[in-house]
Amino acid sequence: MAGYIENKDAVLKRLARVEGQVRGLQRMVDAETYCIDVLTQISAATKALQAVALELLEDHLSHCVADATREGGTEADAKVKEASDAIARLVRS
Amino acid sequence: MAGYIENKDAVLKRLARVEGQVRGLQRMVDAETYCIDVLTQISAATKALQAVALELLEDHLSHCVADATREGGTEADAKVKEASDAIARLVRS
Amino acid sequence: MAGYIENKDAVLKRLARVEGQVRGLQRMVDAETYCIDVLTQISAATKALQAVALELLEDHLSHCVADATREGGTEADAKVKEASDAIARLVRS
Amino acid sequence: MAGYIENKDAVLKRLARVEGQVRGLQRMVDAETYCIDVLTQISAATKALQAVALELLEDHLSHCVADATREGGTEADAKVKEASDAIARLVRS
Repeated sequence: MAGYIENKDAVLKRLARVEGQVRGLQRMVDAETYCIDVLTQISAATKALQAVALELLEDHLSHCVADATREGGTEADAKVKEASDAIARLVRS
Repeated sequence: MAGYIENKDAVLKRLARVEGQVRGLQRMVDAETYCIDVLTQISAATKALQAVALELLEDHLSHCVADATREGGTEADAKVKEASDAIARLVRS
Repeated sequence: MAGYIENKDAVLKRLARVEGQVRGLQRMVDAETYCIDVLTQISAATKALQAVALELLEDHLSHCVADATREGGTEADAKVKEASDAIARLVRS
Repeated sequence: MAGYIENKDAVLKRLARVEGQVRGLQRMVDAETYCIDVLTQISAATKALQAVALELLEDHLSHCVADATREGGTEADAKVKEASDAIARLVRS
């Protein structure tokens, strides 16, 4: 089950906004907008994407990982390892 | 003038692909896909956006900044400062 | 209590290595080494520091946050929020 | 020649401060300081290292790359490519 279910609508709205930013980037490039202005918008879109990731991660820790921890056993360790790997990919992207 | 003009079509194609990734993310969230799988796709989309930024930056350095340098004067320093600020925003996003 | 206690020696060893890398950077700059070579070493030291952070974070999730979750109550939510804020700082640094 | 020569003392001072931060981190871990406080300090040290990198990069662009551009030829393109690769390593670290 997805840990973000309670925030599903909010997450969808944020992603729709990122999609709008990426479409805006295409219009900027098509209009041959000055490089630095395009780069500023790419930084904004990247930050917006990372913010969605951070929200999903918090939901995941407080629901999926927490549930596994309460049930105990090796599943709990596996969930922490899996979350840590996702955090590592996020830090490096 | 935009430094990426020679690569304009390639840049537009990359951005269209990122838009597709972000639409795919919305479908995943709508289908309540497991958090970690959504996070993996967000990392991929973030990397793709950063790759576009790095390409624009290289084009910017080799055209806009190089042109200003050849003309000399205070404009050259201003261009390097502007590019450095854009790099800083990219590193921190 | 620190979640990394079982790995304390390994963490200290990694940090000592990062300290060595930063001292090496000072020697390189003092010897006026070519900029790009210094930058390559800064990237390596940054990655090493981030790797320590990711290890501490995994230990923190599997011990401190997991313990709070098992005890339940508002403390568990506070721990997840605190860890999420630390992850956000890491992603943005 | 190193592009940061005029700022050499300032760069060395910043690196000495980062070395102090990393030694402080070892003391914190040795004293078994709470994970989150150690992580906050790692984020600070990482940011300080990235700030040195951004300064070196700006010096490199305004001296080494600018000089190559003024001389022209294939050397100028090679310098921009080399700087772009260094920026990519920085963004991903």
